[in-house]
Formats: sequence, structure tokens, C-alpha cells
Amino acid sequence: MIKRTAMALALAALATLPAAAETTFTVLGSGGGPIARPDRSQPANLLQVNGRNIVVDAGDGLSIRLAAKRVRMGAVDDVLLSHLHFDHAGGLLAVLGQRFQTNPDKPVMIYGPPGTAALIDGIVAGMGPAMEAAYGMEDAQIMTPEQLVQVQEIRDGASFMLGDVTVTAAKNSHYSFAHGSDLEAKYESLSFRFDTPDRSIVYTGDTGWSDAVIALAKDADLLVTELIDLPSVMENVRRTAPEHLIEEIEWHLSEHHVSPEQIGRMAAAAGVSKVVATHLVAGARITPEQTESWAELIRAGFDGEIAIAEDLQDF
Amino acid sequence: MIKRTAMALALAALATLPAAAETTFTVLGSGGGPIARPDRSQPANLLQVNGRNIVVDAGDGLSIRLAAKRVRMGAVDDVLLSHLHFDHAGGLLAVLGQRFQTNPDKPVMIYGPPGTAALIDGIVAGMGPAMEAAYGMEDAQIMTPEQLVQVQEIRDGASFMLGDVTVTAAKNSHYSFAHGSDLEAKYESLSFRFDTPDRSIVYTGDTGWSDAVIALAKDADLLVTELIDLPSVMENVRRTAPEHLIEEIEWHLSEHHVSPEQIGRMAAAAGVSKVVATHLVAGARITPEQTESWAELIRAGFDGEIAIAEDLQDF
Repeated sequence: MIKRTAMALALAALATLPAAAETTFTVLGSGGGPIARPDRSQPANLLQVNGRNIVVDAGDGLSIRLAAKRVRMGAVDDVLLSHLHFDHAGGLLAVLGQRFQTNPDKPVMIYGPPGTAALIDGIVAGMGPAMEAAYGMEDAQIMTPEQLVQVQEIRDGASFMLGDVTVTAAKNSHYSFAHGSDLEAKYESLSFRFDTPDRSIVYTGDTGWSDAVIALAKDADLLVTELIDLPSVMENVRRTAPEHLIEEIEWHLSEHHVSPEQIGRMAAAAGVSKVVATHLVAGARITPEQTESWAELIRAGFDGEIAIAEDLQDF
Repeated sequence: MIKRTAMALALAALATLPAAAETTFTVLGSGGGPIARPDRSQPANLLQVNGRNIVVDAGDGLSIRLAAKRVRMGAVDDVLLSHLHFDHAGGLLAVLGQRFQTNPDKPVMIYGPPGTAALIDGIVAGMGPAMEAAYGMEDAQIMTPEQLVQVQEIRDGASFMLGDVTVTAAKNSHYSFAHGSDLEAKYESLSFRFDTPDRSIVYTGDTGWSDAVIALAKDADLLVTELIDLPSVMENVRRTAPEHLIEEIEWHLSEHHVSPEQIGRMAAAAGVSKVVATHLVAGARITPEQTESWAELIRAGFDGEIAIAEDLQDF
């Protein structure tokens, strides 16, 4: 576990950094899961600060979106996982596999909530035969698991530096296990705050309404948030899901995700300057009219700048 | 191991099938690896026969391309892997993860060469904590590993039925371990032939020149083949790879992949009706001029129909 005291060191370090630092946050995949969309890649983002490439969530299609940003898989320094749902993590086998096959000069660092180490350990163990067969030539073993990846699990309150970036994690409300239960003690879904030399950016990951996320986002320049269009999703659910699951699904979707109205109120409460909605979950193909209506609903509670993300859009 | 005698049963079964059967082979991802391309998804294909959805190789981005074909992950019946390079397998975590989260009514069947079972076992073991946390609610465990996936390893000569489709596997020349070595005995890269009620389709996977593939493709309606543009790739390699690896990389690329000229000669030798080139490996963004020049080079040896695949193109 990375200690919270790292935050103090991190903030001290910031004071000595050059003013010319440049931060870009790119939404690589703006679709939400668990069902993939045809028109948007699965949740993944890229934070670039002074040459460091930090991937934030790693959904299916990540490698193709990274290629569009001209970032090779081997040039990724860190991968942060907000939680272990597979729309956010499904691209990890491609991350590790493509790195194995392209000789990066160091292991990728993966940070995520409890369960991340087991996930990576399992994937790497599974890759064993493929790593032994490699390119189908004798004596062509390219790298060991240790050269491939290192994992650090993090929890609520963790704070650590990735190059010039201070990352702070807070437990959000995407999970709602029974209070005092084993599962509650074991698992967390996280939101992240990135303090860079020139910007402060908060990424909600998946969350319902959350005072912890509001506190984490206090006065941030940018709030990158998930969004669900519950009415349109429930229309689909009622048509396709088993009758006995519909009520539970609706409860899950409304408690564990945020509506445009909630986004506006959370952004206002946090006092952020700008909101970017991504991880768009809606029942059908997303139209410009729909994204404009979401922006309107956010605007009802928040008078700052608002954007509904497209894949590969920089912020 | 599935027995070769299944072939006889398979052929007998074909005689009783309705004539109205319909086969569609869709190239979901037409890019080749190991480095992802911005403009094409990683290697993946969809064979649809009488309502059965068979995914053939599962590269990164598969779920998004399937969504574009309106095939939900839970509606995939089978996944076939030609070999264990990660441009062909990187999407498997998304396959299993998205299925776990969307209640399919049966396990997906995965068929692949030796090493496939270990790969899937590792992934599924790694998914343990995420499966336990599930949707963040008590008592919401959705499925066990056994309900999620079943694996069957196959080797050279395997023949088995998937619904109305007879699949036959042949070892190709994508690997070239030393003769008599342990690695040669252990690992295989496979090509597949699909005999459906109305078509015969051969998919090379990755291969160099291969008499075994020519024999497998004998008189097939369609040969779906990989393609490498070696001169343009080597231009890139010479610019970016470590000096001491360049010769080995060039040897690997020329022995373990096929040029457009070789494709034309293999297609002619097999007597196929049509060639579709996919798994396109080229040094830079692929232009229409380049695809036309590849078609010309194939045409030098082969006088049938020729197509250079785009993502989501049906054949």
C-alpha cells in the first residue's frame, strides 16, 4: 500500500517544477459498458504529462485508440484501473500481450483496487505458453513476467506520484455492499484526482452520487465523469432482460451511476471549472440531439463549461 | 482432443441439411499485429452459419466490431484461435469479462492450439476477485467459471463440427522451431477450413508459404489469407528496431508471413475461386494505391477474384 504521506512529498515536489509543463487528457474510448457500442470504443483514457503516458482504465479497443494517438503500447508508462468491471479492464490482455511482443524497455506499472494483482497474476500465468512459443523460433524468449509488468494495489485515500503527477484515489459509490460485510471490506471502486504542474483533473470512473467524489473534485479544473441516460437504458432492459431481474437492474443502474442532472449538481458542489461526460451509457445509437439534451440537463445545475466526449477528443 | 473420425459423421450430417443455408464470413478486424494500427481493428473474424456465431481469432477491439454487426458478446457460440500471438488473442479478456457481466445462457466454447487451455485458465483465475465483487451488491454472483467458458485444445488434423459447420485444422508454417525440438512438439500455429452447407472457406491465420495450407484450401470457394508488405515494414523496422535484431526480424517476417506474390501462387496451387487478404501488415497508413498494388501482385499468380479486406466487410 502506498502511504498517504506521499501526498505531502508530492505537493512539495510540485513547487520545484517548471511552469511550462503541459497536460493533455484524452478520452480514448467514450462508450460505457458492459455491452459494447458500435460507435464508441470501451472506457479508456490517456493522461499525458511531460512525456509520461498514463492510461486510465483499459477497455477493449485501447490499443487501436492509442495507435491513433501515435502512442505505441510499449510507450505506456502506467495503467490505472478505477475498478474491475470488464468494460474498463477488458483491454489488459492486449496491453500485456502487445508489450510482450514488441520489446518495451521497462515493465508497465499497473495500479488498481484490490483484486488487480490477482487479475494480472492470472493473465500473466495464462500467457506462459504463448511467451514460451514466442515468435516460433528457438532461443527467442523475449521477456520474463517480471520484465513485463509490476502491480501496485491501491485503496481509498492512496496518494502517489507518477512522474510529475500526483494521483489521489477516493472510494466512490459504484459498489454498495452491505455495511460491515466481508465484501465491503474487500472491494472498492475508485475515483482519481490528478494534480499535474499545470492542471487538476478528476476522473470519476464509475460512480453513483458520491460526497467523496465531490470532496476529491474540490475546485478542480476538469471533472471527467461517467454518465447514464437511465430512461433510454431501461427501455432496452425492459425489452431484453429476464422479468425477475428488471427491478434489480434498475436499482443498480440508478444507485451506481450518475444521471446528467446529478452530474450538474455534483460539479457545482465541487466547484469545478469544466465537466466532460464520458462512459456514455444509453439504450441506442447516440445522436447529437441526445448529447445536446444531456448537456442541457447538466447545465440545469452547473454553469461552467460542459462537453460530451467523443473518442480521441483531447481536454 | 477431438477425433478425426468426427469428419465422417460431419460429412454424413451435411447431406441432410436444407439447401437454403446461408454462410457469411465477416472480417471484423483487418489490421495485422503485433503493433496495433489506428485505421483497422486487430485480427478478428465472424463466421455466421444458420444462426451460429463463430468468432475466428479475437484481437483487441473485437467487442466493438461485433456490436457493429449487432452481435452481442453473449450471442457468440464459439471462439477459434489460430495461434497464441496477442494480436489474435488480446480480445479474450473482454470476451470473457463482457459475457460474465451480461448473463449469457450458456458457456462460450473456445478452441485453439496447445496453450489455449492454460491461457483461458489463467484469465479465468485472474477474474476471480472481479467475479466475486460482480456488480457491487450482496448475493449478486452471476456465474461460475464453468458456466462462463469451456476450452478444447486442437492440433494439426483435428476435425469437428460446430453446428452445421465442419472445421478442419492444419498446422501451418508461422512457427519454425528446430526439427525434433521440444518446442516443435509442443506448439502449433493452425489454419482452418470451414465446410458449411453452402460454402467452403479457408482461413490461413498467420503463415508463411505452406504446402499444408495449399492442401487444406484445395478447391475452396474462398481463401481468407494474411498478407505482409515486407518492403514497407522493413523500412520501419530499420528505423526503429535495435540494430542487432534487424536481421532476425527480417528472417521471421519473410519466413512466417506471406507476401502478395506468394498469396497468388498459393491460391492458384490450391485452385480456390476467390482470395480475400486481411491481417494487413504494412509500415504506414494503408492507402488505396497500396491495396491496389497488393491486388496486382496477387493477380500475377492467380486469375480468380481478389479483395483486400476492410473492417466489417462481408464475404
